[in-house]
Amino acid sequence: MSEPELRPKAEKLDAADELAGLRAQFVLDDTVYLDGNSLGALPRSVPGRVEDVVRRQWGSLRIRSWDESGWWTAPERIGDRIAPLVGAAAGQIVVGDSTSVNVFKAVVGAVRLAGGGTEGQPGGRQGPGGKQGPGGRDEILVDATTFPTDGYIAASAARLTGCTLRPVAPEEVPDALSERTAAVLLNHVDYRTGRLHDLPSLTAAIHAVGAVAIWDLCHSAGALPVGLDEHGVDLAVGCTYKYLNGGPGSPAYLYVREDLQPRFDSPLPGWNSHADPFGMTPDYTPAPGALRGRVGTPDILSMLALEAALEVWDDVPIEAVRAKSLALTDFFLECVEAYVPEGAVESLTPSAHAERGSQAALRCAGAGDVMRRLIARGVVGDFREPDVLRFGFTPLYVGFGDVERAARVLGEMF
Amino acid sequence: MSEPELRPKAEKLDAADELAGLRAQFVLDDTVYLDGNSLGALPRSVPGRVEDVVRRQWGSLRIRSWDESGWWTAPERIGDRIAPLVGAAAGQIVVGDSTSVNVFKAVVGAVRLAGGGTEGQPGGRQGPGGKQGPGGRDEILVDATTFPTDGYIAASAARLTGCTLRPVAPEEVPDALSERTAAVLLNHVDYRTGRLHDLPSLTAAIHAVGAVAIWDLCHSAGALPVGLDEHGVDLAVGCTYKYLNGGPGSPAYLYVREDLQPRFDSPLPGWNSHADPFGMTPDYTPAPGALRGRVGTPDILSMLALEAALEVWDDVPIEAVRAKSLALTDFFLECVEAYVPEGAVESLTPSAHAERGSQAALRCAGAGDVMRRLIARGVVGDFREPDVLRFGFTPLYVGFGDVERAARVLGEMF
Repeated sequence: MSEPELRPKAEKLDAADELAGLRAQFVLDDTVYLDGNSLGALPRSVPGRVEDVVRRQWGSLRIRSWDESGWWTAPERIGDRIAPLVGAAAGQIVVGDSTSVNVFKAVVGAVRLAGGGTEGQPGGRQGPGGKQGPGGRDEILVDATTFPTDGYIAASAARLTGCTLRPVAPEEVPDALSERTAAVLLNHVDYRTGRLHDLPSLTAAIHAVGAVAIWDLCHSAGALPVGLDEHGVDLAVGCTYKYLNGGPGSPAYLYVREDLQPRFDSPLPGWNSHADPFGMTPDYTPAPGALRGRVGTPDILSMLALEAALEVWDDVPIEAVRAKSLALTDFFLECVEAYVPEGAVESLTPSAHAERGSQAALRCAGAGDVMRRLIARGVVGDFREPDVLRFGFTPLYVGFGDVERAARVLGEMF
Repeated sequence: MSEPELRPKAEKLDAADELAGLRAQFVLDDTVYLDGNSLGALPRSVPGRVEDVVRRQWGSLRIRSWDESGWWTAPERIGDRIAPLVGAAAGQIVVGDSTSVNVFKAVVGAVRLAGGGTEGQPGGRQGPGGKQGPGGRDEILVDATTFPTDGYIAASAARLTGCTLRPVAPEEVPDALSERTAAVLLNHVDYRTGRLHDLPSLTAAIHAVGAVAIWDLCHSAGALPVGLDEHGVDLAVGCTYKYLNGGPGSPAYLYVREDLQPRFDSPLPGWNSHADPFGMTPDYTPAPGALRGRVGTPDILSMLALEAALEVWDDVPIEAVRAKSLALTDFFLECVEAYVPEGAVESLTPSAHAERGSQAALRCAGAGDVMRRLIARGVVGDFREPDVLRFGFTPLYVGFGDVERAARVLGEMF
């Protein structure tokens, strides 16, 4: 197809889009914003809420707001709001800290759940022998193509628990698993290529050797169904500033499956995770439930902005979001093929729906410069080293007309 | 003295107060707010700034703000704004994460700086022998009267580094120090009693045995001079929502003395602390300087609210704040003595200026109920288990008239 066919096709697709009305709930302009997988657009519900939090809750009620404005319980309340978007029942998610900090809690917690590492030895690691834990689980596997912070933090967790970190390509994880494996940290969607990994089968393979499965949902939550409970995931983390539109650096979250919570042993047992935080006792007793994933005082401004941002999800089924996401990326790849000279770009994005997240990644020469010129023309994606143009498609506010225009402007770059 | 003398005295003190004009920079009402050591009042500079961050920086510029609005460099820029308030030269403080998370970075980092624990052994902790580190430093001392989170987190750091945690009353620290001591974590001001500990001499004693000194400044920063550089403190942490008025749960900070930075080895090496974060390489190379204390993506809303809040400190010398703070607590204790029936309360606050922070703690029967009734009468302090009325005096916005009224209403409780 060519422009005279693709533009009417985009109009038809937009007219039939059941989610099209959601765009009005966001602050957008005439740029085509395909960077929502880095920072989601501003939901209209946020500015007024933040103003109320600052002026009334902080300014007038001050300290009383910890109770009266629900500040203290925000981490678990907002966790419960995220839960249905990732297929989790209530009481398993707390919001707070950065993704990196949550990866640390999850990986150390996973090694302990698996009885791995050396820190739990009788006599401790200062005792003689330095034997591995029960079952000899001394290895952590991490996605070799991971977003770097997961690998850096997993390496730190391995060092501190006396484990070895082994980077493995996700497709090779089943072969790499063994009775030595304590925990496996994987990304649901690859941040660079947009490849969607097979969470159900990888989780089952990890469980088959008795190891603990940790999934990083940064690039999938809010874009596609995750099914944490359904697939028996043990631990999960994710950020909230991409497809959940929580704002710059909004707090991340930690999922601990309900039956594991009594044994979840956080390496960051701050006073907010204490069973009686205001008892202020010198001894630590962890709170029951997801609350033991909390650490210190939550950053209320960012957290309540996120809570307002999540309102847009009321009555939006994640399945409908997924259907539109796939239609958007399909149409984008179709338009790219039509508009971009042959050989100028190479798609890294899997063509099979079952392997695709909500982004398209195109490799091309001079990608950094191409992205700068695209942005100057009002098409905002981002550049990832060394040669990748990355376009994210947020089904809540991106339309098919946007997609057609983005591909058309991209074609004019060559 | 009695009311007919104390009220005119308060008026005279207020009239002579050089900092009195600063009160206009805060949103306050007719309550006497003596809980700024829990949550500082709202600075007038904050609401407009936050609105700009939300509506323009996030809403309009979106992803561009990471560069164009200075989001990316905020942690170190705001750290440099805090630095003069705690006696630190620029380039040694980064803002981000909660106090608890920063305590964890600091304690594990300190053990590593001291060459302590067992994780650095040749052959690792899985090797034979399980010997202690060079120098055999396997003990962490922590203030036995500490705010609980510091103790909980220090225990976790001890467990993960193969050290023993030993709680010690601050005055007994010099006797407890030995060649086994890797690190010592102390509070500059006790959160309950308001006692100010002797940072210079304790730091010197810690250094005399070759251990690393970590100070928690939550209850001193912004209320009195700290002199981190002058006294050779190694590492320090603090929150920003008390005397720095950064807002509920605003991010904490980490100080790493300049000459220690090249050896500071964070247990939370997130991508924000990488020398080339956007290179996204699988190998971790720590950034030079204070930046290696960063972890993940900073929470921009809370962080930039804090930046606006810090503007009130322009041209306010911390020495003047300290002088007023002591005058306020002196006057409060004088008024309490005059107004409160003898024997009804007992002051836990040291009478010597050198041992007093910026709060007064009064022990009394039924303290929880007394505080509820005080708050109902417009005098806001807080209650700390088991029997403590806690009153914080923020010199930037508390006046001597407030102090007289608080003590007078307190006297009417008995």
